[in-house]
Amino acid sequence: MPPIGTPHTVRAFDAELDALNQKIARMGGMAETQLGDAVQALVTADLALADQVIKGDDAVDTTEDSVNEMVVRMLALRQPMADDLRVVMSSLKVAGALERVADHAAGIAHRVHTLKHHAPVPAVKSVGRLGALVLELLKDSLDGYSNRDTERAIRVWERDEEVDALYSSLFRELLTYMMEDPRNIAPCSHLLFVAKNLERIGDHATTVAEVTHFIATGKRLGRGRPKGDTTASFDMPESN
Amino acid sequence: MPPIGTPHTVRAFDAELDALNQKIARMGGMAETQLGDAVQALVTADLALADQVIKGDDAVDTTEDSVNEMVVRMLALRQPMADDLRVVMSSLKVAGALERVADHAAGIAHRVHTLKHHAPVPAVKSVGRLGALVLELLKDSLDGYSNRDTERAIRVWERDEEVDALYSSLFRELLTYMMEDPRNIAPCSHLLFVAKNLERIGDHATTVAEVTHFIATGKRLGRGRPKGDTTASFDMPESN
Repeated sequence: MPPIGTPHTVRAFDAELDALNQKIARMGGMAETQLGDAVQALVTADLALADQVIKGDDAVDTTEDSVNEMVVRMLALRQPMADDLRVVMSSLKVAGALERVADHAAGIAHRVHTLKHHAPVPAVKSVGRLGALVLELLKDSLDGYSNRDTERAIRVWERDEEVDALYSSLFRELLTYMMEDPRNIAPCSHLLFVAKNLERIGDHATTVAEVTHFIATGKRLGRGRPKGDTTASFDMPESN
Repeated sequence: MPPIGTPHTVRAFDAELDALNQKIARMGGMAETQLGDAVQALVTADLALADQVIKGDDAVDTTEDSVNEMVVRMLALRQPMADDLRVVMSSLKVAGALERVADHAAGIAHRVHTLKHHAPVPAVKSVGRLGALVLELLKDSLDGYSNRDTERAIRVWERDEEVDALYSSLFRELLTYMMEDPRNIAPCSHLLFVAKNLERIGDHATTVAEVTHFIATGKRLGRGRPKGDTTASFDMPESN
């Protein structure tokens, strides 16, 4: 029941918050579809699907703009405090992460076109596996956010380590192909970037999980876990 | 002179806006230094300087957080409208772009460490040239933003094309080195990512220029110019 004295304002705020959450959920669905389609376009070398992903990116950008506008309006008109403010501001962060997920998906779709000009390389399958893992984590992070499910958020956050490990082994695998045959160098260079796009999407899923944990508990998930691209900081044996 | 009736509120808003602009200017200086140091660390293989860049990234993140908090407070307390709202909201976008610039600079610094494990490759110099160009554009974009200089903003926006062209030729150059000698494959793969980091920083400088133009004129810079990484969408001759 709304507090006595401000029932109208409170109800208006709740209705706006519902609309905001629905907009974010829709944006999550769009980003998820974009990623799934991009990975499928890559694995099946489907140019039409890749084009669909490239065109679809605008709709995600527009949705982010509209989330931002909703947030500004709510801050100015409702002046939310404490928990409400936390939820409203978290929407900006989640929308920003989803916009970047879709951006990376479009990046992958562009590479599908470039790869068409090269001989097929078997490493595409391994990249597809990384794509499947990252898609799963993105879905889980979005479910966790919708349901304010802290347990699920923590699991996503922990599993980002798997993404990093798979990315590192993929990086080595791609370099091996390049060393085996110079004709693999150009296509595998593009796959290196695709793998990097996927690794970054994993980071954005982690961000969504961190936001979920923060709005549910008010506490930030610790930074005690190795994160991100480890290929840039450890020795890469030249013969491997 | 402040409008009659609300001089106190107006002055408070102006003071807060000054503080916000100063914070953004400081953050711009930090991002510029981080980028300059990262490029220098790369070209001179200076591990100590690279470490400094890696450590310095936290300060940029913290500054972004504090920009975000200032903006939320201003929106809730002052409820700015029209031009004021545009300036306040633009700060979020500029701070976000600068945070990502610093992130990419830290990414470059990590690669300086990895490259130490490999034989030196001459292509580092070409990457340094791209770094110098991007640093110049970042500086110009920040000067343009501080002074609300639309002319300068348009020049930065136009010159991002140079970044894209230099990036594309660098991409080809790196692939050539990799084809010449398999021992170049690992170090040049890392340089591909460094080049990509720099190309993205160019995009963020362009974002700052676009924001400058938007708050000065209320109009968005058109999208009629080819933008971004063209290596992903055109044919890459395998022999080149």
